Amino acid sequence: MLERIRIVLIGTSHPGNIGGTARAMHNMGLSDLALVAPRCEPLTADTVSRASGADHIVHGAHTVETLEQAVGDCTLAVGASARSRTLPWPMITPRALGEQLPAELASPAARVALVFGREDSGLTNAELQRCHAHVHIPTNPDFSSLNLAAAVQVVAYECRQAWLGQQVASGPAEMPAAEPLASHRELEHYFAHLERTLVAIGFHDPATPRQLMARLRRFTLRARPERMELNILRGILTATEQQAERHK
Amino acid sequence: MLERIRIVLIGTSHPGNIGGTARAMHNMGLSDLALVAPRCEPLTADTVSRASGADHIVHGAHTVETLEQAVGDCTLAVGASARSRTLPWPMITPRALGEQLPAELASPAARVALVFGREDSGLTNAELQRCHAHVHIPTNPDFSSLNLAAAVQVVAYECRQAWLGQQVASGPAEMPAAEPLASHRELEHYFAHLERTLVAIGFHDPATPRQLMARLRRFTLRARPERMELNILRGILTATEQQAERHK
Repeated sequence: MLERIRIVLIGTSHPGNIGGTARAMHNMGLSDLALVAPRCEPLTADTVSRASGADHIVHGAHTVETLEQAVGDCTLAVGASARSRTLPWPMITPRALGEQLPAELASPAARVALVFGREDSGLTNAELQRCHAHVHIPTNPDFSSLNLAAAVQVVAYECRQAWLGQQVASGPAEMPAAEPLASHRELEHYFAHLERTLVAIGFHDPATPRQLMARLRRFTLRARPERMELNILRGILTATEQQAERHK
Repeated sequence: MLERIRIVLIGTSHPGNIGGTARAMHNMGLSDLALVAPRCEPLTADTVSRASGADHIVHGAHTVETLEQAVGDCTLAVGASARSRTLPWPMITPRALGEQLPAELASPAARVALVFGREDSGLTNAELQRCHAHVHIPTNPDFSSLNLAAAVQVVAYECRQAWLGQQVASGPAEMPAAEPLASHRELEHYFAHLERTLVAIGFHDPATPRQLMARLRRFTLRARPERMELNILRGILTATEQQAERHK
C-alpha cells in the first residue's frame, strides 16, 4: 500500500526541505516523490545533510513542470491546505485521510497523491481545485504554518499508522514474548511474607493495621508483577528478615 | 492541558534542531521547553531560522545540567526510544500516549515530561530507566531514526489531537478525585533510599548490579505510586535500615 502513495512538492524553495521530506518519507516507508517546478536546485549539500541517508529518494524523484504531470496517473489527489478557501472544499484531517487510505488503495491500480505547496504561500486556488479533497493539519491558530518537511512528516506518519493498523487487522499479531506474570498464589505467598517481615522489623502491628497491608496490596497488584520481579522482592524480604533475626 | 506538557531535549548538537523543535511545539500549542546539557549554543542564526517565528520558545527555555533538574516536578516522564532495550520497559505508541494525556493531566498539579535524546545516540539506558514509559514512533525498520524536530513534531501532534478530542467531547469532565501521584523527584529519592537500604542489608552490591535496580525501577514506575504509598515504602526502608544499623 505505501509504495502507491506519492508525495508531490510544488515550487519548493529550500533544498533542505526536500532533504527533510525525503527523510520523513523514508522513515515512514514511503518512496515515491515528485517535484513540480522546484524553485531551487533539488540536490545540494543541504538536501543530502537533511536527508541524512534518504537522499536516494531525491535521486529517484521525478521532476516535472506541472501538477497535471505529477498526479496524472493517480486515482486520488489530496492537497495540503493551511486555511479555508473562498470556495469550501471537502476538508479532512490527516487521521481521517489515513483511515481512508486502505480502502482507497485496495485496488492494485489505485494510486494516491498527497500534494504540498510552497513554503511561503502554499498551494494556489487553481492547484487546490485540482485535488479531490484538502487535508488540514490541526494547528495552533496563532501559529499555523508548519515547516514543509514537518507537514509531510505528520501526514506520512498517519499513512504509516493506517498501514500498520491494516497489518494488525489482517495478520497474526506478533506480540513480544513477555515475562510470565506471577500467579495469584505466588502473590498471596508474597503478601504473607511481606506482612511477617513488616512485623519482624517493627513496622507493622496486626492489632492496629491502619489499612497498611491493603495499601501495599493495591500498589503491588496495580503493577501486575512478573514472577521474576516477585522473586526479587521475596529475596529482599528474606535478607531483611535475617537482619531482624540477628537481634533475637 | 497543553501548557503542562514539557518537551525535554537532552544533549542536542544542532541549534537548527532546537529551532525546529520550537516551531513544532508552537505549531501544536506547546510552550514549555527544557534543554539538558546542550552540546551546542542553543540560540544561533540557525535556531532562529528554523524556528521561523517561534524562537520565543527557545528564549523561554530552561537550560539545566541534568535530567533530574528538568523533570523533577513532573508526575509522568516518557522517554522517546528508537529501539527495544536489554531490559524491556512499558512501551507506548504516540497515539496511545496522546489518548492517555487528558486523564493524566486531569489534576491541575499534574505535569508531563516528554524526553528526547541526542541526535546520534538517543537516550542512555540510565536516562530511559528514569522514565515511567517509553514512546516509540512506528517507523520503517530499515530507516528508523527520525530527525529530532520531526520526532517532536509527531509526538506534539498527537498531544494536540488528544487535546482537540477532549474539547470536542466537551462537558465538565468529572474525574474521580485520585490521590496525588509522587513526583519524579520523590521517586528518585525513594530509589536512592531503596538502593542504600539494599546495600545495608547485604542484598545488593553496586559493583555487580545485575540489573537489580533497573528491575525494581521498572516494577515501581509501572505502578505509578501515589505520594502516600511512597511514604509508606520509605517508612519500611527506614525501619529496615534501623535493623541493619544495630549490627554495626
